[in-house]
Amino acid sequence: MELFTDEYFMNEAMKMARIAFEEDEIPVGAVVVCRNRIIAKAYNQTEKLTDATAHAEMLAITSATNSLGSKYLNECKLYVTLEPCVMCAGASFWSQIGEIHYAASDPNRGFSRVSEGLLHPKTKVKNGLMALEAKQLLDDFFKKLRK
Amino acid sequence: MELFTDEYFMNEAMKMARIAFEEDEIPVGAVVVCRNRIIAKAYNQTEKLTDATAHAEMLAITSATNSLGSKYLNECKLYVTLEPCVMCAGASFWSQIGEIHYAASDPNRGFSRVSEGLLHPKTKVKNGLMALEAKQLLDDFFKKLRK
Repeated sequence: MELFTDEYFMNEAMKMARIAFEEDEIPVGAVVVCRNRIIAKAYNQTEKLTDATAHAEMLAITSATNSLGSKYLNECKLYVTLEPCVMCAGASFWSQIGEIHYAASDPNRGFSRVSEGLLHPKTKVKNGLMALEAKQLLDDFFKKLRK
Repeated sequence: MELFTDEYFMNEAMKMARIAFEEDEIPVGAVVVCRNRIIAKAYNQTEKLTDATAHAEMLAITSATNSLGSKYLNECKLYVTLEPCVMCAGASFWSQIGEIHYAASDPNRGFSRVSEGLLHPKTKVKNGLMALEAKQLLDDFFKKLRK
């Protein structure tokens, strides 16, 4: 797989999601990329941290701002395996992140069911890359949970 | 001032906001109360932590869940000096917090301009208590900033 493509970065986010799966967390992973370099990786840790706000995107955004020493991520891209929720969309707004790429849509809790206007007006959004893999991992997780 | 009243807890949130003011942070403070006991206090630290997600409510919710050892805050109340933004409303949704009391409204970035439906259906909301003091502190802050 060639470096520096959207596919490469989304695949890195998927690797994070798979770690979440192994750790019995809802499997969502995220990476933040700045100038073709991954500056933050995270996966959902709401169970481990006993913190309902510890979504992959929140952890990745906080880690990225720490890494850059800047509150703003205008020149960065977030790759995340599931459509961000309202909270994470709000966090991306405050960080003014340049682009969001999400894999699977979330018809239940995705931000876009509320309003596309939750994002910063300068944030570009793409979705659908590796959506099937991302959704399959989530489906497998909830199947495992019900057992 | 009598203990265990909404006024008492909002005043504690105001004290947090004043610390933020002194530390050159946008002055918003929050406390989380569970069974009449303050289990978390926080103020906005976006500058100090270089983290656009470090709003008073986010820090207070995370701290409260750590304190309780539970992801959920159903029996807790959040007192905050400014209407929560979309991100913080989303965080309160995931925590299923029982009540939110906010002082000043935020016509620019408050969650209610988007939708009251951003909150958890079980979360009760009250507002307006100490709103004048909370807004005055914010106005003073932005006046100081422009100097």
